[in-house]
Amino acid sequence: MRGAILYGKGDVRFEERNAPTIINPTDAIVRISATCVCGSDLWPYRGISPFPRPTPMGHEYCGIVEEVGSAVRSVKPGRFVIGSFFASDNTCPICRAGYQSSCEHAEFISTAQAPLLRVPLADGTLLTTPDIPSEDMIPSLLALSDVMGTGWFAADAANVKPGSTVLVVGDGAVGQLGVLSAQQMGAVRIIAMSRNPARQKLAREFGATDIVTERGDEGVAHIKDLTHGIGADSVLECVGTPESMMQAIHSTRQGGSVGYVGVPHGVELNGEKLFYAHVHLHGGPAPVRRFLPDLIDRVWNGKINPGKVFDLTLPLDQVAEGYRAMDERRAVKVLLRP
Amino acid sequence: MRGAILYGKGDVRFEERNAPTIINPTDAIVRISATCVCGSDLWPYRGISPFPRPTPMGHEYCGIVEEVGSAVRSVKPGRFVIGSFFASDNTCPICRAGYQSSCEHAEFISTAQAPLLRVPLADGTLLTTPDIPSEDMIPSLLALSDVMGTGWFAADAANVKPGSTVLVVGDGAVGQLGVLSAQQMGAVRIIAMSRNPARQKLAREFGATDIVTERGDEGVAHIKDLTHGIGADSVLECVGTPESMMQAIHSTRQGGSVGYVGVPHGVELNGEKLFYAHVHLHGGPAPVRRFLPDLIDRVWNGKINPGKVFDLTLPLDQVAEGYRAMDERRAVKVLLRP
Repeated sequence: MRGAILYGKGDVRFEERNAPTIINPTDAIVRISATCVCGSDLWPYRGISPFPRPTPMGHEYCGIVEEVGSAVRSVKPGRFVIGSFFASDNTCPICRAGYQSSCEHAEFISTAQAPLLRVPLADGTLLTTPDIPSEDMIPSLLALSDVMGTGWFAADAANVKPGSTVLVVGDGAVGQLGVLSAQQMGAVRIIAMSRNPARQKLAREFGATDIVTERGDEGVAHIKDLTHGIGADSVLECVGTPESMMQAIHSTRQGGSVGYVGVPHGVELNGEKLFYAHVHLHGGPAPVRRFLPDLIDRVWNGKINPGKVFDLTLPLDQVAEGYRAMDERRAVKVLLRP
Repeated sequence: MRGAILYGKGDVRFEERNAPTIINPTDAIVRISATCVCGSDLWPYRGISPFPRPTPMGHEYCGIVEEVGSAVRSVKPGRFVIGSFFASDNTCPICRAGYQSSCEHAEFISTAQAPLLRVPLADGTLLTTPDIPSEDMIPSLLALSDVMGTGWFAADAANVKPGSTVLVVGDGAVGQLGVLSAQQMGAVRIIAMSRNPARQKLAREFGATDIVTERGDEGVAHIKDLTHGIGADSVLECVGTPESMMQAIHSTRQGGSVGYVGVPHGVELNGEKLFYAHVHLHGGPAPVRRFLPDLIDRVWNGKINPGKVFDLTLPLDQVAEGYRAMDERRAVKVLLRP
């Protein structure tokens, strides 16, 4: 089969590689219905994060189970499944506490931009939908594999409650779905930071009530203006740069919460500043598995449509163009169909 | 009157200065029954934190109201009162959210090592005890002004719940009362880090179930051994150094919580390490005012006896010896009687 392989900065190729096979009896092989490019894929693509070269790519997936190992019980061939970007046993103490992305046996899924994918720990990792979904539901189900679950975790980590005032830093796909998550959790005011008219429009569709275009100190000042001078109750940090992190912390009211899901790059937090900021800070790789049952239900029943973040769909063999479109911010998020 | 004044590194003097008077109609003047030396007083005393010289000292207090301003309603002359080390209006949105130490009108109390103290925002800051307390209750009531409330906040910020496994980093007065707080909140296992036999004994009296004497990587390894390899649910950071902060973060299980109340000195947190540690982080200057009604009740009814942290009592005019004893770790905490 052919799959996406990153060779170097800006160099993704769609090349022949071995099809996956069952290695452990807890594995499943999934025939991919749809996969996509993640904002975090751009870190190595842009040469910012180091990586072994060449390296297969992709960690978001949904599809039909092709084969299962002898120890797999809950997942059957022929069923449509979704899993998190971290495989997890879902039974260890860390999983039971709801942090499956830090499972004692966690394995990062890293070969999903391909027609077939090996998913380890299939019973712990994969959830089956009630039936085979219609084509138009697939983008929203795919989104649950990472980007929607990550936006949801940002809102959960930022302690969004009914009535909260929420700020979302980052207008990429995770930020957009952070807006949707806050809306679903009952936030009454959702401020999205964005300078891009198309992304502002999407944020409003997902539930943003206010848009702030300024950044840095001016951005913080505008947010304070909108929040009686005190800052937001909950701030979702969906970027991962030093600037976005400090923007998030400074825009939070004392006693409020920052949920951060943008993979930090170059972020150093000064202990004394954090101490006097008086905020709650929580984040990390989203434990998407925790939220999957609820989120599948919300998609299945038409309550949410996170698939709207995909504004470009390409055949999988054009994966290189998908990376380029996201790198150049021509697309929010690119869906790939094998 | 005479009060404590810090002139420079290691140089506290008990000197004549003006007695306080009512400045604003919301002020009260309190005749101090007892005050004390705080671990945080040692930062400037040791020349680590800069300060204007000379500067009056002291932020922990309880005593009898001597006089009130014309706007004060809830506090009456002749009543015994306790207040936090931050004066607060207790009505602003930040106070209503329970973060009175970041009140929009917060004022740090900084002249309490003296016979008389002006307390701003008296209605918001001071709580009255049901009656004039007996002499033997005064140390425990004094402790509520900062050290007990700070230990309580550390446990609250670290999300201690009935059944929790808790680690306390720091065997000073705040750490000791963090142990007591965790015990009161229903923790089933409380691990105290200490190398000092007297402090280990005190921690056990307050509820510690285990003592760890190792530090750094060895300390973390021992804590992992005691917690099924995963770390504690809740960790109270009661020191404020880079070493203690990293010790706290690395000893917390993924999804667990660090409550930090040691004023950070030289702490820089790497964003990426924090991201993958997957912990909740919350702390800052303790909003003692939030906890005072409950804590006064617990002391008044004999449920807790936080005054046990005072292992040296001196007349106020020997305040310099009080600083020396704490600096040299001859005393956990020094009570001063005018």
